[in-house]
Order: sequence, then C-alpha cells, then structure tokens
Amino acid sequence: MDSDQFDSISPLDFRYVDQQTVACLSENAFTRYKLLVEIALVRTLCRYGLCSQETVKEIEDACRQITTDQVYQEEKRIGHDIRALVNCIQAKVSDQAKPFVHMTATSYDIIDCARAVQINALIHDVVIPSLFDLEKVLIEITLREADTVQIGRTHGQHAVPITFGFALAEYVSRLGASIETIQELAKNIKGKFSGAAGAYNASSLFFHEPENFEEEVLAELGLKPAEHSTQIAPPEAMARTLCETTIIAGILSNLARDMRNLQRTEIGEVGEKFETDQVGSSTMPQKRNPINFENIESMGKIVNSRMSAVFMDQISEHQRDLTNSASGRTHIEIFAYTILMIKRMTTTMKKLVIDQSNIVRNLAMQKDLVLAEPLYIILAALGHPNAHQAVKILTVKAQRERRSLQEIINEDKELEKYINKMTAHQRNIISNPVLYTGIASRKAKVIAKRWKQKLGL
Amino acid sequence: MDSDQFDSISPLDFRYVDQQTVACLSENAFTRYKLLVEIALVRTLCRYGLCSQETVKEIEDACRQITTDQVYQEEKRIGHDIRALVNCIQAKVSDQAKPFVHMTATSYDIIDCARAVQINALIHDVVIPSLFDLEKVLIEITLREADTVQIGRTHGQHAVPITFGFALAEYVSRLGASIETIQELAKNIKGKFSGAAGAYNASSLFFHEPENFEEEVLAELGLKPAEHSTQIAPPEAMARTLCETTIIAGILSNLARDMRNLQRTEIGEVGEKFETDQVGSSTMPQKRNPINFENIESMGKIVNSRMSAVFMDQISEHQRDLTNSASGRTHIEIFAYTILMIKRMTTTMKKLVIDQSNIVRNLAMQKDLVLAEPLYIILAALGHPNAHQAVKILTVKAQRERRSLQEIINEDKELEKYINKMTAHQRNIISNPVLYTGIASRKAKVIAKRWKQKLGL
Amino acid sequence: MDSDQFDSISPLDFRYVDQQTVACLSENAFTRYKLLVEIALVRTLCRYGLCSQETVKEIEDACRQITTDQVYQEEKRIGHDIRALVNCIQAKVSDQAKPFVHMTATSYDIIDCARAVQINALIHDVVIPSLFDLEKVLIEITLREADTVQIGRTHGQHAVPITFGFALAEYVSRLGASIETIQELAKNIKGKFSGAAGAYNASSLFFHEPENFEEEVLAELGLKPAEHSTQIAPPEAMARTLCETTIIAGILSNLARDMRNLQRTEIGEVGEKFETDQVGSSTMPQKRNPINFENIESMGKIVNSRMSAVFMDQISEHQRDLTNSASGRTHIEIFAYTILMIKRMTTTMKKLVIDQSNIVRNLAMQKDLVLAEPLYIILAALGHPNAHQAVKILTVKAQRERRSLQEIINEDKELEKYINKMTAHQRNIISNPVLYTGIASRKAKVIAKRWKQKLGL
Amino acid sequence: MDSDQFDSISPLDFRYVDQQTVACLSENAFTRYKLLVEIALVRTLCRYGLCSQETVKEIEDACRQITTDQVYQEEKRIGHDIRALVNCIQAKVSDQAKPFVHMTATSYDIIDCARAVQINALIHDVVIPSLFDLEKVLIEITLREADTVQIGRTHGQHAVPITFGFALAEYVSRLGASIETIQELAKNIKGKFSGAAGAYNASSLFFHEPENFEEEVLAELGLKPAEHSTQIAPPEAMARTLCETTIIAGILSNLARDMRNLQRTEIGEVGEKFETDQVGSSTMPQKRNPINFENIESMGKIVNSRMSAVFMDQISEHQRDLTNSASGRTHIEIFAYTILMIKRMTTTMKKLVIDQSNIVRNLAMQKDLVLAEPLYIILAALGHPNAHQAVKILTVKAQRERRSLQEIINEDKELEKYINKMTAHQRNIISNPVLYTGIASRKAKVIAKRWKQKLGL
Repeated sequence: MDSDQFDSISPLDFRYVDQQTVACLSENAFTRYKLLVEIALVRTLCRYGLCSQETVKEIEDACRQITTDQVYQEEKRIGHDIRALVNCIQAKVSDQAKPFVHMTATSYDIIDCARAVQINALIHDVVIPSLFDLEKVLIEITLREADTVQIGRTHGQHAVPITFGFALAEYVSRLGASIETIQELAKNIKGKFSGAAGAYNASSLFFHEPENFEEEVLAELGLKPAEHSTQIAPPEAMARTLCETTIIAGILSNLARDMRNLQRTEIGEVGEKFETDQVGSSTMPQKRNPINFENIESMGKIVNSRMSAVFMDQISEHQRDLTNSASGRTHIEIFAYTILMIKRMTTTMKKLVIDQSNIVRNLAMQKDLVLAEPLYIILAALGHPNAHQAVKILTVKAQRERRSLQEIINEDKELEKYINKMTAHQRNIISNPVLYTGIASRKAKVIAKRWKQKLGL
Repeated sequence: MDSDQFDSISPLDFRYVDQQTVACLSENAFTRYKLLVEIALVRTLCRYGLCSQETVKEIEDACRQITTDQVYQEEKRIGHDIRALVNCIQAKVSDQAKPFVHMTATSYDIIDCARAVQINALIHDVVIPSLFDLEKVLIEITLREADTVQIGRTHGQHAVPITFGFALAEYVSRLGASIETIQELAKNIKGKFSGAAGAYNASSLFFHEPENFEEEVLAELGLKPAEHSTQIAPPEAMARTLCETTIIAGILSNLARDMRNLQRTEIGEVGEKFETDQVGSSTMPQKRNPINFENIESMGKIVNSRMSAVFMDQISEHQRDLTNSASGRTHIEIFAYTILMIKRMTTTMKKLVIDQSNIVRNLAMQKDLVLAEPLYIILAALGHPNAHQAVKILTVKAQRERRSLQEIINEDKELEKYINKMTAHQRNIISNPVLYTGIASRKAKVIAKRWKQKLGL
Repeated sequence: MDSDQFDSISPLDFRYVDQQTVACLSENAFTRYKLLVEIALVRTLCRYGLCSQETVKEIEDACRQITTDQVYQEEKRIGHDIRALVNCIQAKVSDQAKPFVHMTATSYDIIDCARAVQINALIHDVVIPSLFDLEKVLIEITLREADTVQIGRTHGQHAVPITFGFALAEYVSRLGASIETIQELAKNIKGKFSGAAGAYNASSLFFHEPENFEEEVLAELGLKPAEHSTQIAPPEAMARTLCETTIIAGILSNLARDMRNLQRTEIGEVGEKFETDQVGSSTMPQKRNPINFENIESMGKIVNSRMSAVFMDQISEHQRDLTNSASGRTHIEIFAYTILMIKRMTTTMKKLVIDQSNIVRNLAMQKDLVLAEPLYIILAALGHPNAHQAVKILTVKAQRERRSLQEIINEDKELEKYINKMTAHQRNIISNPVLYTGIASRKAKVIAKRWKQKLGL
Repeated sequence: MDSDQFDSISPLDFRYVDQQTVACLSENAFTRYKLLVEIALVRTLCRYGLCSQETVKEIEDACRQITTDQVYQEEKRIGHDIRALVNCIQAKVSDQAKPFVHMTATSYDIIDCARAVQINALIHDVVIPSLFDLEKVLIEITLREADTVQIGRTHGQHAVPITFGFALAEYVSRLGASIETIQELAKNIKGKFSGAAGAYNASSLFFHEPENFEEEVLAELGLKPAEHSTQIAPPEAMARTLCETTIIAGILSNLARDMRNLQRTEIGEVGEKFETDQVGSSTMPQKRNPINFENIESMGKIVNSRMSAVFMDQISEHQRDLTNSASGRTHIEIFAYTILMIKRMTTTMKKLVIDQSNIVRNLAMQKDLVLAEPLYIILAALGHPNAHQAVKILTVKAQRERRSLQEIINEDKELEKYINKMTAHQRNIISNPVLYTGIASRKAKVIAKRWKQKLGL
C-alpha cells in the first residue's frame, strides 16, 4: 500500500531505516515467510501422497503472487489474519488444489514457523555479519594501538597505566563471546506443526506418525520441531536470543559511553572525523559532538527497556492465549535497534581518530602519583609493616607541596632500605611510571589475534 | 516520501494505525509542530521590532510549503536535523528575511517546544476525548447492570455476591481519576526558549529581559516556560504524563483481563457480538475468542515495559547530552499504544453482550456457601466464642455431604439461640444469599452518575 | 525474633540501614500499623454503640502487647496472616470482647489501610523532611556559587559559559517541583473498609449507611476512603506516588552523574572532602573516588527497574487476586532506596568542595571558540548572508593554526562592517567571552530564593 | 550483629527465608566467600615461593575467625569494604605474615571471585537440585495423568481435547531445557585476578607470567579466569545466568497461572490439599484460595522487573566505575526469589489434587462442537469446496437450536457423500469426539520418560 513514509510513528520506519533489516523484519517480509511455510506444507503433503505435484506447483505460483496488501484487505473483511492468507491463496488456485492449502495446519503452525525462519535468517544474514564487521574494526584498532600507553581510569579517576589497545581488547573479547553465543542460540529457535493444541489432533486424522510429518515440513524450512508445543512453540528459545541481543546492546552501550567520555573537551583522547558539510550544532559552529556514540547509547536504553515485555510474554494461558498478539509483534524491534547500534558503531569506530598528544598529556597529569600503587605493593612485599598508610602519607605530601612523588620518595630515609632490596625491574618501574602497564600490550595482541583467527577475519 | 506501508517494522505503522494519532505523532506532524515554533519565533521578533511584518509573512509562507522529505534530504547532506529545517526555510525566503529564521534559537528551543505543543494537542484532541467516549460506555453499562446480581470473585474463587454494574463502577471510578489527573499533567508540559545552555546567552545579546521574550514566543504556542531549563526543558513533566498514560494502560489491562476471564467457556458471563464474516479460528470454526481484550492486554505489556527508558532519559549530563536522541523519539509510542487500547476497549465494550443465564447459573453454583461469611460475622457479633472455626466446620460438612449449608445450619442445635437473636434483615439474608450484595447496586449508580455529571457526559 | 543481621540478603537490611526508614517500613512497623487499624475499628464500633468502652480498652491494651513474632508463629500454624493477627488479639481479650476484634472487616480492609497510614507517615516524616534538607543545601550552594563562571557543557563538549550556581539551580527547580508533587500525591492514598468484595456486604448487616461507618474508621487513621474499592483499594494512588518517587530518584541520579563527571581527574571542578581515615582504593592510596555519587546513581538503577512490577500489579482479577502477595510487599523498597539517595546526596553535597582554579582552567581551554556562537548570531542578525558557515570556517582556521578566534576575526576584512554595526554590549561580549553567560547568575539567585521562600527554608 | 529479624524491610529477610539460600547469599556467606579468595591467594603465593607454609597457616586461621560484624566495624572507621577485610586479617597475623595478605590484589579481584564462587555454589547446590525435585514431581504427574482426557483451551475457550499429562509435559520440556541451559551458563562465570585496571600491573611486579599466577589462584577456587578483565570481570556471564533464571521464573509463572485458572470455582479441575488448621479467608471460611500459585506468579513479577538493572549494570565506564555498587548487591535477589518459586511450586504440585469429575464435566460442555475442527479438516481434505464456512454454519445452527452437532451433521444431505468417503479412523473420531486427542497421551509419556532418564531422576 503506498503511503508517505513520514506518516510513520516509529523512528524505525522513517529515520533509522536499515534495508537489510527491512528485508527480514518488515511486514512484507513476514508475509513472505508465512507463504514459505504454506509452500513447505504442500510440498510435504505431496511427498506423503496426499496431493499431486501439480497442486504443489499451483500453490507455489499462487504464493509468489500474493501481496501483504491483499492479505490485509481480506483480513479486514473476515477479521482473521491467517485465514485471510489462506483465502488469498485459495482464490488463486483450482478447486482441486484448494483443500491442500493450509491442510491440517493451525494459524500458529504457520506463524511460529515463519517467525523462526525469519529470525534465523536475520541472525545469519544480518546480525552475525554485522558483528563480524564490527569485530574486525575493533581488532584492527586493538592491534594498531596495542602499545599506545594510556592512563587507566576507575571511578573516572586516573588509576594505573594501560594501553589503548588493551582497553579495546575488552570489547573484542566481550563481543566475541556474544557472537559465539548468539550463533548457538539461533540454532535453537524451533518450529512447530502440531496443530491447534499441540497434540497433533488434526494431523493425526491423516498420518500415523504426525511427528514425522511435522519434521519433514520443518526440514523444508531448515527448522527442527520443538520437543513439545501447544498451539505455539515454547517462547524460551526466542527469549534467550533476545536476551543475548540485549546483552550485545549492553556491550555496545558500554563502548559508546567510554568513547564519548574520551571525547570530552577536557580529555580529548579520541575524536570522530567529521564530514565536510556536517554541522555540529545549530548555533555553535565550533562544536564536534559525539552524536554517534550518544545515539548508540540511546538505542541501548530502548533495547534494555523492552526485554520486560519479552519475559511477560512467556506466560500464555493453557494451550495459549493471545495476550501476546500485539506485544509479540514488537519484539523484533529489539533486533532492529541492536542492528542499528552494531552498524553505527562500526562506521563510527572506522572514523575514530586518536589524539596522541592528549593521551600523553593526560597520562602526565598525575603520572607520578601512579607510582603509589607499585610502591605500596613492593614495600608491602618487602615487609614494610604499614605500606598502604605510609604511601598514602607520601602522596598527600606530594599533592600538598605540588612536588613529584619521586622526589618525596627519594628524600625519605625510611624507604631507602626497601628500595635497595627491590629487583631491577621493580626499581625501573618506580622511576618510570609509564612502564607500569603490566602485560597490557601483550594481552591486547593475544586477544585480538585469537578472535581474528577464531572468526576467520 | 512514497513507500510501501508494509515495509514498516513497527506494527504502529501498518497494522495498528489510528488516523487521529498519526495526525499528531507522525514525523510529518512533528515537522509541522517544529515549523509552528519557528513561526512563533519570527512573529515575536517582529513584535519586538527586530524584523518587519513582511519578513513574518515570508517565513510563514515558507513554513507552509516545507515537507518532511525536504528536511530529511537536507539533513542527509549536512548531518544536523534542525539546521536542515532552518536551511529549508531560508532557501525559500529573501536575503533580508534569512537572518530572522531561527534567530537566537538553539535546536532544542524548537524541538522541546514542538514536543510540548504536540503532546498538549494529543492529550487534548485524542487522549481525553477517547477516554470520555470509553467512560461514557462504561457508565451506561454500569447503570444498566447496576442491579444484575453476579457472584463476586477473589482469587478466582466465588466470594460474596455483588452486581455486574458494581464491578464496572470500579473502572468508571479508576479511569475517572486518571482522566482528571492527565488533564492536569498535560498543562504542566512546558516549553523553553533559553538557548544553548539555558542561560539565555544568545537572546541576551538582543533583549534586556530575555525571559519576557521567551514567554511571548511560548504564549504564541499556548505554552508556558519551564522555571529552569538547560539546553532542554526538564524531563519530569513529560515523564509524569507518560506515567499516568501507563497507569491508564494498566487500568485497561485489568478490565480486559476481567472481561476475557468472564468469557471463558466455563464462565460465559459476557461475550462479544461477532461480525457476520468474522472468523474465530483458522481451524476451529466454532470458536469465539476474546481477541480484542487479549489485544488490549498485550498492548498494556508494551506500554508497561517502555517506562523504564523514560526514567533512564531523565539523566542528561550537564547542560544536556544527546543519549536520548533515539529513545526520546520512541516515548510517544507509549501514547500511541494507549490510545489504541482506549479506542479498542470502547468499541469492544459497546458490543459486550451479557449472558444473564450464565450469570445466574454461576451464582447458583455455590450459592449456599456464600452464607458462610454473613453467618460467621453475625455469629461473632452475637457473641459466638469461635464463630470462624464453627462456620468452617459447617461448610466442610456441607461440601462433604453435598447438602445445602442452610440445611446444616437448621439442624445445628447450638446455632439456634444465635439465630433467634438475629435482626429481621440478618435472618432474611441468611435465608436468601442472593440478597447479600451489600450496597453494590446503590453504589454503582452513585458512582456512574457522579462521573457522568463531572465529565458532562 | 533475634537473628544475625548479616544473615540478610537484601542490602537494605544490613548495609543500607536507615533508622527512620526502618521505623516506618520494617515488618515490625507494618504490624504496628495493622494494629492501629484494628484499634480504629473497635473505637468506631464503640461509637456506633456495638461495643463498650471497656472492650475498646481491652483491645487497645492487647494490641499494644502484640509482637510481629507472635503473629508469625500463629500464621505458621494456621496459614493466614491477618487471621493470625486477629487470633493473637483475641487470645489477649475477654470472651465478651472477642467478637468485636476485626468485626465486619476483611483482611485487606486492615492491610490496605495500614499501608496507606504507613506511606503517609513515611512521606510526611521521612521523605519530605529529607527532601527539604537536600533542597536547603542545594539552595545554599546555588546562592554561594551564583556568580562562579563555569563552562556550560553539552554532549560533554564545551558549549557556552554559565555559572556553577545556575547549573545547580536546575536541581533546585526540578526537585522543588517533585516536592510539591509528592506532597499532593501522598494525600490521595486512600483507605478502604468495604469488605470482602468492596460492596460492604458484611458491614451492611449492621449499618444502614456502611459508607459512613467506613469514613469514621478511616478518619481515626487520618485517611479518606477510596471512591470505589473491591477487596482492595484501587492501586493507582500508590502507583502515582511510586512514579514520583522514581522521578525523584531520576533527578538525583542526574545530579550524581553530573557531579561525578565534574570530579574526573581531567576536569576536577568539584571534589568531596575526605575523612582522615578514609581509604580511597585498596591498592591505589592516592585515589579519591566519587563513591557517594556512584552509589546514588547505582540506587537510581534499582529504583528505575522496579517500577515495572508496580504497573504489573495494577492488574488484579475481578474483585482481587493475590498475585501481588509477594510483589506488593517489595514496592516499599522503592521508597527505601530513594530515601537513601536523598540522604546521601545531602551529606555529600554538604562536603562538596569547588576547585576554583580548575573551573577557571577549563573555562580557558577553548575560551575563544566560545565566541563562535555569539558571533554567528550577531552576524546573522546584522544581515550576514551566511553567518553559520562563515563562522564555522573561522573556527576551523583558528583550531588549525592554533590561534585565538579573536585574532582571526580581527584580520577578517569582510567582518569589519558587521563589527562596526554591533551594539556596545555585543562588542563587549565578543572581546570578553567570559561575560557571555546570559542571565545565568541572576536566574540562579531568583530560583534559589523562590524555593527558599516557598518551602520556608 | 544481633537484631530483630522483623526490623527488616525486604520480605526475603523475614518472610520468605530459605535457609539454603541464606547459606549462599547472605552477607555472612559473602564474607566467607571473600575470605576463601584471600586464602586461595596466599596459598598460591606460597606455591610460588613468596611466602612460607606458616604464613599460609596463619592467614587461614585468621580468616576462619573473622566475622562480618568485625569487617563492618572496621569499614565504618576507614570507609572501604575490602581494605577493612584486609585490616581485619592483618590484625590477626604476625608482622611477617602481614605483607602477604591481599598481596598484589585489588578489591575486585577478591569481590568478583567471591561472587563467582558464590553463584557457582548456589546454582550447583540449590538451584539445580531444587529444579530436579520439581522436574521429578512434574514427571510423575505427567506419567500418572498421561491418559486423563481434558479439554484443551486456547484464548480461555474450549478448543480440542488433549490430556492433562500432555499439558504438564509442556512444563517438563520447557523446564528441562532451562536446567540444561543454566548448568552450562554457571560454568561460564569466571573469576579474575588481574589487578586494578586488568593489565596485571601489580602482579607483573612479581611474576613474569601473571596470567599463570591468576590461573592458579582461581583454580584453588574452582574457577577459570575471564579472557579479559578490567578492574572487574566482564558482566555478561552473570547477566546470562540471571536471564536464564528469569526465564525459569517465567516458565513457573506460566504454570502457576494455568493451575490457578484450573482452580477457578467454575472450572475446578485441580485443587490443593489444605492443611487441617489452614484458614482460606479471614471472613469467608468456605474459601480455598490458590495462594501458592498466586504467590509464585507474584514473585515472577519481582524477578522480571529486576532484569532491567542487570542490563544497565553492563555499562561500567573505562576500566570500571562503581555505579553498580548498590545495584550489583541486589541482583542476587533474582536468584533468591526464583529459588522460592521453584521450591513452592514443588511442594504445591506435590499436593495437587485432580478433580476427575469436573474434568469430565467440562469436557462435556461443548463436546460436540469439538467435532467442528476434525469435520472441517476431513471435509476439506475430501474436496469439499468451502469446508470452513460450511462447518461454521453447522455449528451456529447447533448452538442456536441447542442440539448436538452430530445430529445436525447427520441430517445434512450434502455431507453424506463426504462421510461415506472417510476412513474408519476418521468416522470413529467424528462420532466420538473424546477420541480426538491426537497423540497427546503417547507424547506426554515419551517426554516424561526422556527427561527422567536424561536427568537420572
């Protein structure tokens, strides 16, 4: 049905439109998936000898011609969505073929299988590939910046030095685990062809082993049957997939938060290359706002908040109620927003510029105080009776007198004996805090390479 | 932009389309509201003597011609939504008029005012009138069925008798309170015209009392300014309105739950008139499913789950961050779904059929056991030392022997003295449990009439 | 019942214990509130002539002695909480008095009234006073720092200057509105004494006007009756109060987020005075972490996430089901966490130290670029055909050449004619960007003083 | 610390107390887990030759004596929880041993490992065994009632017959899948011993391969290290476990909903054996309320609503912020409530009584109309051109004339030819709708036996 896209209410339908997602998740796509299920059914009926190859051909041809609009027109007339679909198919085939359309099926045999095929396709064709793209970009930056020493921050405060690559390796690792998880989960989304109450009441009228028949219909669609279904397939496999999707959105929100904080004017360690024509602010022409990271974090909130309805929809009374009729149609938006997040993160990270001078400047801000941790730890290890308290006093002194911690240390007669007992490596770090990065660089590289290989990137 | 409506992902944009809602909440509508704000601005500039009446006319004419599509095309080029809008207006006016487009305004002066005008319009034109329609229908049924004795149910178990009108009066009262609340809340949604950080930095360059200027721009739009704003208006007024909307959705969910339970095959106290062509089930032609009430309850879950993101969006760093860029665009869906719930509830309740015979049958199921409560209470009041336990034993006996409680009571010698002490009214009820409805009927009528009058229905 | 507090699971019960909150919200407190309702009942029965003053005295005395532990022991035996309470009271009074304990009441007459009294007390005695304390501290800082020029930040980027007092005035205003709102809402939490299904079935056995009787019982408790109740009072008034509580938590989360960002090592505009013995980090003795603001933000997440169950609990089937039995007991935790947030915010803001030198340093970081906004606006107003683009080019030049924007402006021949047309005020600001604070200072003071007066602080 | 348990606010701490859960999740338990980590650390230090066996012994002895109360007292003094723990240990050991307490560790090395050990123990010792218990009960009922024909219900309306065992097999299957899932997920909860920013900065001062050291400390605790950690372990493994826990709560909520609906007075297919002393209602002595199923559903809402905070806590800025300080302490409540649900479901299902007479009565209510589905399907298969519509007309006629559908069918001349073409099996079902249960019975048994074997029950 032709319409003005901007008459839409959901920003998914006019502002955040991703064509790959539309190809899987739009109502047109869903009609197509439902028709695929009707085709799988008649093919199997034919294999079981219930109808002829011609009937299959007729129904396939009919299915190819049906538009969502036609189905909606018919639904408007009769008030039932799947019966409308069936009527549309039947209207396009011969009287001989008519009985074999939807034969033995209940509405949710069609809908739940269509949903399973749809989500499998989406995960396989869109979610996983876009995650691979992102992972690839993150791995590249991780490797490139594995040795870029950066101050580590906890509580927003300077802590001890790490490297920028190490900080990104965190996301390579967390996202990598999610990629593996969601790949597994998608395989568990099952179909069902067990009729109105799940007991194969209708198909038992025709088949001695209706579970075999179900298995064959589903095999046509690349699906396996749920171990038990009622009128509907059990909701847990989908819920788990949506949980993992939300978890992915959470990881991306975390990365976005980090990046936009590193973009603060006072920090300035990263930036985003701006397009020539791009406007940062309608009144402040100088501004470079981290709008992409902000947008990602914003979508993360959308995703997070919607999981509650997914869990609520686990409750379906007896052999099913329809209190998921509307809500069940909206859960796919969780995928849609997460895909947008993944893709925007990829393009934004690709444009990420690292400001080496600011990284160095920030590192130097409290550089000397960073010594407090290794000093305390080594002193303690060397038997200083009260190392934590002693070092705290030194740092307070350094801060108050605006002098370097090293100066204070060197003046301190009590510490001399401990310093003499230190290993060369320890003494080296005490006099050069930038070396105090542990195994950050090495670890960043190992993780990046491991995932590069695992994912075949 | 022309498109196939069924390429949409959100069911709001192809399945649950309400034209009144679209007229307020679509992106086209939002563009229109933003242009209204730009017009209000230039009119006020003119009143302050900064530009001529001709400029106003030019800009008004330009605004009337601008389409969302044009703005999106321009945004695509420059990457900023409000600057795109401004460019589109400026492109349509003379060089003399150009400077007065958007003069002193920051993007969110426009957006927050547009949002406030939009939500005010929505509440005033759609939410409140549709709630009035629903309230009217509920009041009618309440009055009509005020005397229809029905068993009251707690825990899904028969408790004591009430009337059907009394049960509905609950919803008249709860919804009535929400109508009054949301009317008040909508008035508190404020606008702002205080510039990039809320301190009127830009407008102070031109006006000695920039708050007066703000007040006048907003008055053009029927708005009042927030007491304090940053780049954005404080989010609480909108959050409160959304809370109340969610509360309305909760009330409707409860009514829907009640109605669909009363429609259970075994209960059958209410039903919904079916259209002649309507199909209840794709395989079970005899079925009459409560799909409208199910749909309402389903939308209630959508609404409930989305509030979390509204509360999250209260956090905006310093003078604002943009981590509500996407999420902030989706909060209006809470209104959209709730309006659908209200309207569907109205049409469904209009078609509600009450099955008097089933009501009577159900009431009779345990009729006699209903006596347990009044008997226990009167006995206790008359000084029976252990009334609760005593009556419990009698009811167990009645159930075990499948006899009426009254028989058991009459046989019980110990109770005789208490029965003799009862008032006529009490004895009457003990021998006719259907009379044990308290003031259900009277109260139903009072509540229905009160709200009818209050709302002028 | 004696126990080790650290055998608790909820941190509310061992770590975040606020004595004022415990006094209202603990189970002991709730028992006390329930006993108050039983007392209010018998007093009213006496006034209606159903029982003697001696009976009242007996029951009051009994209620004063009952412990939660006793009630739980009895509940363990009989499996019903309110019947257990009643049994406990009856066990302590004479046989004559026994019938008047709980007479005509259903469990939820007691529970819902007790809850209403409890929450009224909590809001009146704890929430409002602690909000007043916080508001007072915020007002003081607002007034003290009304003239402290600070860079305004949007998107975490430097925008235009404001004052620190102006930034805090935002919270004075937002919290002030919430104080007024929650005071109103608390008044709307109603009680009920309408019996097992809300139709006064039981009380009608004794009173011709059972609503009057209800009104009198409730008046004893400082409550008004709900317009309509079933077995339970309508849940909306409580839901609205919890919504506003969550909104308060949202405002505090925002303030906490702002403060901890201003505490970042690179920003350092505020800090928190540390106690002498306090340890910032177990391994990094030099660290001063914003743990209080972090804790407040963390509690804000707890509060936010719990609202969903409050809305779910609006659905209670027919005259009530008990699917809020456990969840309904946990909603008070929303208050408990919010009170903790308010109190911790108060003590932390009291210790807030402002680092003037860092404020000045940060303000200077891009000081000159701040000129971009006023320059663009004035140029546009003076008829520059393309002001936004022109200024953008100048700022890019200034950044690339690391020179001040003013230098670049002064060299620009094209701009000369516009500069000559500027007012003195405008020229003044163009050459001294720190003056570009609009009416920040004035507005901060007005808002602070308004709320100081409104709240009588 | 001694206290009155009823001074608690969370019902987990006074009303819903499960001793197994307390043993794992209380603060006392958590202290114990943290001390276990400190012990694992010193043992590994000893194996690496840094300290003596005597030091290990000293520290182990000290850890055994420390109480939560002591740690909280010390924390009150110094304001840091883990440093307080360390101080408490150090106070109990010799000066030689002191440096080896907590050596190289950061607070969250201890806390995250303790949490991982705790949750592993909880899942292994409490969650899984209690799920096994429940699964066992469900399997028994499934087998026992595999042949009990019951009407299947969709939309709360009678659909087609199934068996009660088949209906329960749904839950055997859904819960079974969750048991397998959560067992896997618990294995993925990892520990970390990588220091203040995750780069092993401190441990690198002493070990050339600090990851090996980490691995050995963790092995002592039965843990594996996270592939990458910052100051904290990545939150996803815990989030996934909590998701699955919530999914389990969702399945149980669904079962509870089903059971309490089957307990409705009008349905009465199941009931719960009451204890002799139990009181159903404080005023209605005859009532038998499904309070256990209601309570389970209520706890399900608590669990559902709390997941949002778990997802929010995925965001931790840079190498960590502490905005999960309070919220992170509450996530364990999700486990606590779910365990309560599992255990209560087990005891309640054990007491479940099936009312055979009501099952039969309900089945008979519309028995004949059940024929509509098989009749329509067979007619369609036999080439009836418009079977769905035709059968619909017959059912309307049957309902209007209050006659059996079979009578109407037999009178219908048009249908005769189709009936003649039916198989014996088909004709059998058409004349005996109770046989129309598909493979319900067989499938129930297969599923029950499969899980019985899989889980070794």
